[in-house]
Amino acid sequence: MTNAQSSKEFEARLRQIGSERYHDKHPFHKLLHEGGCSPTQVRAWVINRFYYQSRIPMKDAAFLSRCGNAELRRAWRSRIEDHDGAIGEGGGIRRWLKLAEAVGLDPDYVESCDGVLPATRFSVDAYVYFVRDKPLLEAIAASLTELFAPKIHANRIEGLLKNYEFADDNSLSYFKHRLKEAPKDVAFGLDWVLRHADTLEKQDAAANALIFKTDVLWSQLDALSAAYVEPARVPPGAWQEGQGLLSIKQNKSKVAS
Amino acid sequence: MTNAQSSKEFEARLRQIGSERYHDKHPFHKLLHEGGCSPTQVRAWVINRFYYQSRIPMKDAAFLSRCGNAELRRAWRSRIEDHDGAIGEGGGIRRWLKLAEAVGLDPDYVESCDGVLPATRFSVDAYVYFVRDKPLLEAIAASLTELFAPKIHANRIEGLLKNYEFADDNSLSYFKHRLKEAPKDVAFGLDWVLRHADTLEKQDAAANALIFKTDVLWSQLDALSAAYVEPARVPPGAWQEGQGLLSIKQNKSKVAS
Repeated sequence: MTNAQSSKEFEARLRQIGSERYHDKHPFHKLLHEGGCSPTQVRAWVINRFYYQSRIPMKDAAFLSRCGNAELRRAWRSRIEDHDGAIGEGGGIRRWLKLAEAVGLDPDYVESCDGVLPATRFSVDAYVYFVRDKPLLEAIAASLTELFAPKIHANRIEGLLKNYEFADDNSLSYFKHRLKEAPKDVAFGLDWVLRHADTLEKQDAAANALIFKTDVLWSQLDALSAAYVEPARVPPGAWQEGQGLLSIKQNKSKVAS
Repeated sequence: MTNAQSSKEFEARLRQIGSERYHDKHPFHKLLHEGGCSPTQVRAWVINRFYYQSRIPMKDAAFLSRCGNAELRRAWRSRIEDHDGAIGEGGGIRRWLKLAEAVGLDPDYVESCDGVLPATRFSVDAYVYFVRDKPLLEAIAASLTELFAPKIHANRIEGLLKNYEFADDNSLSYFKHRLKEAPKDVAFGLDWVLRHADTLEKQDAAANALIFKTDVLWSQLDALSAAYVEPARVPPGAWQEGQGLLSIKQNKSKVAS
């Protein structure tokens, strides 16, 4: 049996996966934060990325449903609270819908997920199924893309504020909150994975889970690019410009704060 | 409650979904059968489509595992036999690997599924999960893309034979067998769906299941196009030309007949 990597080596291996495969390396990310996206491309991104946001609490609930350790459940549960918010207010999902309104989309349309690309749906659902089916260690390891998230969020806030009229404190509140939430979540997850991946076999499984998750994120930007960046080809049934727009008459947000 | 459509109307509705959304309308299909694909593009198609073939018997096993009706199980089981073949011979999976060899790929590499695009994996897996999770009516309805398959197979055989050197009776045996198998399977499935979708609600659910399945097929060709048709961008970790090729010295097929 081959020896496990030291905790330090293993953490470096996980971080290396991010440097090579995290979706901040994808051309669509660059296009977006450098101001090169058309309003249609920004809207397509908002609609499709909403599907990811909408499934995160279901993913975390799938995790809780399989977790016999009450201490771990208590620590993990805040992820659902952070995303869903309370009955009448708050939460990442509502904050994302504020972004949707700011780019001219009807939040009810975005929330319906009607126009989401099938490829977005399949990759996001793959993540939910992964967490439902795989050992807990791999489910937690897959969440460690959050190690790389604060950088992309800071980058997005800066790039969007600089380059797009719709960007302000209100529309970007999702990212501002994630700047605070993600580091707390990931410190817990990383510590757990480093402590429980105590054989090389488990370390390999955890590293592969993280690779899987980078694939989930990357393939969403691939799908967006194929559908909405020239030579653009929107697949049958997916959102086309002009659908789901806010009525011009509306002058008050539909989304609770 | 709204009345159900007549059997004839409902069948026409299902066939209409195929005319609008089946993947014979996708530009990659046209490119392939008209001889416009480079050897790299043909190989990428063979590698990725193999993943679909490889999961079909698992999909059908998931169906059997949920089916309490022995008569239905007996009728459905031949699908697994058709794809997997017997211990030492036959089956659609082996026939697909013959195609892989004919285009210069090592069948062991193709069978490993190592280079499959993540987006292919996610869309194919979505189909397996769909059949595992949804009502049996929807699982059967999703299989009805076979209504449209004989035409695409005949079309492929003709186009490949005409335009590519690798094409002959041996390398195309997969498609020739499917010409016989698919009509038998689909006659059974269509009859079952027409008889059991006896309310408008069930007809809507069955139609949506068929739409879902056309999305599964379409998104596979979208992913292939994004990765391997100009402006091509292969995602991290997926097959690149030069990987998994047959050794030049090999002069006997590795695949059992």
